[in-house]
Amino acid sequence: MANEGVEISNKQVILKEYITGLPKESDLLVTTNNTISLKVGRGSPKAVLVKNLYLSCDPYMGYSMKHPDCDLHNPYTPGSPITGFGVAKVLDSSHPDFKKGDLIWGITGWEQYSLLTATEPLFKINHTDVPLSYYTGILGMPGLTAYAGFYEICSPKKGEYVLVSAASGAVGQLVGQFAKLMGCYVVGSAGSKEKVDLLKNKLGFDDAFNYKEELDFNATLKRYFPEGIDIYFENVGGKMLDAVLLNMRVHGRIAVCGMISQYHVDQLEAVHYLTSIIYKRVHIEGFVVSDYFPLYCKFMDTLLPCIREGKIKYVEDIVEGLESGPAALIGLYSGQNVGKQVVVVDHD
Amino acid sequence: MANEGVEISNKQVILKEYITGLPKESDLLVTTNNTISLKVGRGSPKAVLVKNLYLSCDPYMGYSMKHPDCDLHNPYTPGSPITGFGVAKVLDSSHPDFKKGDLIWGITGWEQYSLLTATEPLFKINHTDVPLSYYTGILGMPGLTAYAGFYEICSPKKGEYVLVSAASGAVGQLVGQFAKLMGCYVVGSAGSKEKVDLLKNKLGFDDAFNYKEELDFNATLKRYFPEGIDIYFENVGGKMLDAVLLNMRVHGRIAVCGMISQYHVDQLEAVHYLTSIIYKRVHIEGFVVSDYFPLYCKFMDTLLPCIREGKIKYVEDIVEGLESGPAALIGLYSGQNVGKQVVVVDHD
Repeated sequence: MANEGVEISNKQVILKEYITGLPKESDLLVTTNNTISLKVGRGSPKAVLVKNLYLSCDPYMGYSMKHPDCDLHNPYTPGSPITGFGVAKVLDSSHPDFKKGDLIWGITGWEQYSLLTATEPLFKINHTDVPLSYYTGILGMPGLTAYAGFYEICSPKKGEYVLVSAASGAVGQLVGQFAKLMGCYVVGSAGSKEKVDLLKNKLGFDDAFNYKEELDFNATLKRYFPEGIDIYFENVGGKMLDAVLLNMRVHGRIAVCGMISQYHVDQLEAVHYLTSIIYKRVHIEGFVVSDYFPLYCKFMDTLLPCIREGKIKYVEDIVEGLESGPAALIGLYSGQNVGKQVVVVDHD
Repeated sequence: MANEGVEISNKQVILKEYITGLPKESDLLVTTNNTISLKVGRGSPKAVLVKNLYLSCDPYMGYSMKHPDCDLHNPYTPGSPITGFGVAKVLDSSHPDFKKGDLIWGITGWEQYSLLTATEPLFKINHTDVPLSYYTGILGMPGLTAYAGFYEICSPKKGEYVLVSAASGAVGQLVGQFAKLMGCYVVGSAGSKEKVDLLKNKLGFDDAFNYKEELDFNATLKRYFPEGIDIYFENVGGKMLDAVLLNMRVHGRIAVCGMISQYHVDQLEAVHYLTSIIYKRVHIEGFVVSDYFPLYCKFMDTLLPCIREGKIKYVEDIVEGLESGPAALIGLYSGQNVGKQVVVVDHD
């Protein structure tokens, strides 16, 4: 018997089947058919029973919906709740590192309550003077992604020219602000006037453009970067990457964080200008955040004071209720969200 | 007056016009119309008048034939001799580092005699117990290219799986042997049975294949690398790169030395599988050897003993006479050469 004690209803967001093409709301099912005991079973060492509070919508999740053997994070199983990063409260624990009442962030289920068996890393939340939802974003996986990608992969220097794509997203908005703190010139690409305004007026980007209004990305980049690009923080792939390759400066760096434009196409878009890599001595590096979890303490020491002092701003797009989760997640792929997309399961 | 003294005939290989498409022999003209004084002119500080001995045929040269503003090495001027790496003997010098009788290697003209004004680096040849022609290859630019690309960019470790394309070329044959010295498993790709035999039987590659006989590079690579590829030393680009991206291991590295298949196409070939960069955390880096000239002494200290002790082999494809130069250079683009292509202007 995995769990014991009284079973209560546990609302869940289930993946119906592995998908092809773009994820749709109808690929996910919100159901209350399941029940769960709120106690960790006796036979579960290092298990944590949590109440989920905030769930993170991240682009990679649509990719996990396609692939049974996803190389990235936690694989999905049709008929079971999807999983993702989230903030949760510990209700019961057989794990020596966590006790009842602790707040944690890490991989959890898209459901009201989850039994986590610590196969994925869980982080204890020690600072609660900032909004808890921040641990799905700026103080969680996307934050560490931005930090590791920018500082560790891009090796930025003062005065360098930086382009960030998907710049108003959870990762992009932070990368741009890190670049400004470093004394770089930073331009963001985003998909609406509202997002462009946000980048320029609230998040401190030097400039920004709406890629949906640009016909020729090469011309666009030449306009925003007449001197070329030193650092490209890549979140989208495809045509933008191709145009960037034509506009890199010598010894430029491209941190490949994601390629959201390529996750759900029938045919991957062609990239042609890789020969630029040679002449411009470009360094391109893909990375996944899990390789950088050991940096988390250093990251928190850097970031928390910046948030408390208002030196770094953060924009969230919050929807209420697990029922709203599928639409919020699917909205990522058409760029509906403005800022980090979060789903509130419960506030405490 | 740039030169002074008696003028003598100076045979040259001239670029007629900037080219489009694949270089042809007829784009180059061998002429004896010019004369040169064998003295450095009084008004030429830091100049060296040399007699050219060995000229190096390198893939980038065809690229320079196309582009007036080549980012790479020395640009070409129609109506003037093409230039490239070579070995030469100093006949006269106003340069404090070189004196009459010195042997040097560096960028020189495709002609019998050149007046070098030291705008490009020149290296004095201190070791003559190895063939002088080696300084166009294993002990010159291609050697340092292989050394810097493999050791500095690829950060190889014992037991890793290494693929080298254009593997019997000047750079590739060395990269493969460096990989073996490091304890890696190394497979070479080349364009004929003769080259494949050379790689397997003389140069010590673990395996090799003729890419011209392979219909599906992805299947080929899965056959030779069932465990995937840790290091790809890229000399060709295009379809091979695309297939490699599908077969990289986590934290794999791709050193982009050249993309000879892409230098002379009307339309650059599409690469589709760049998303692999993310999941596999691949590091791709382009490089040019001039950034690594400061390593030359260290490189020589490593390589000379290996050559003297026979631990590293080296295959040259030598043609005699400046008249043979155009055909030898153009032959690179159809893979006619077996080993490093060298043109002998004079033996001493």
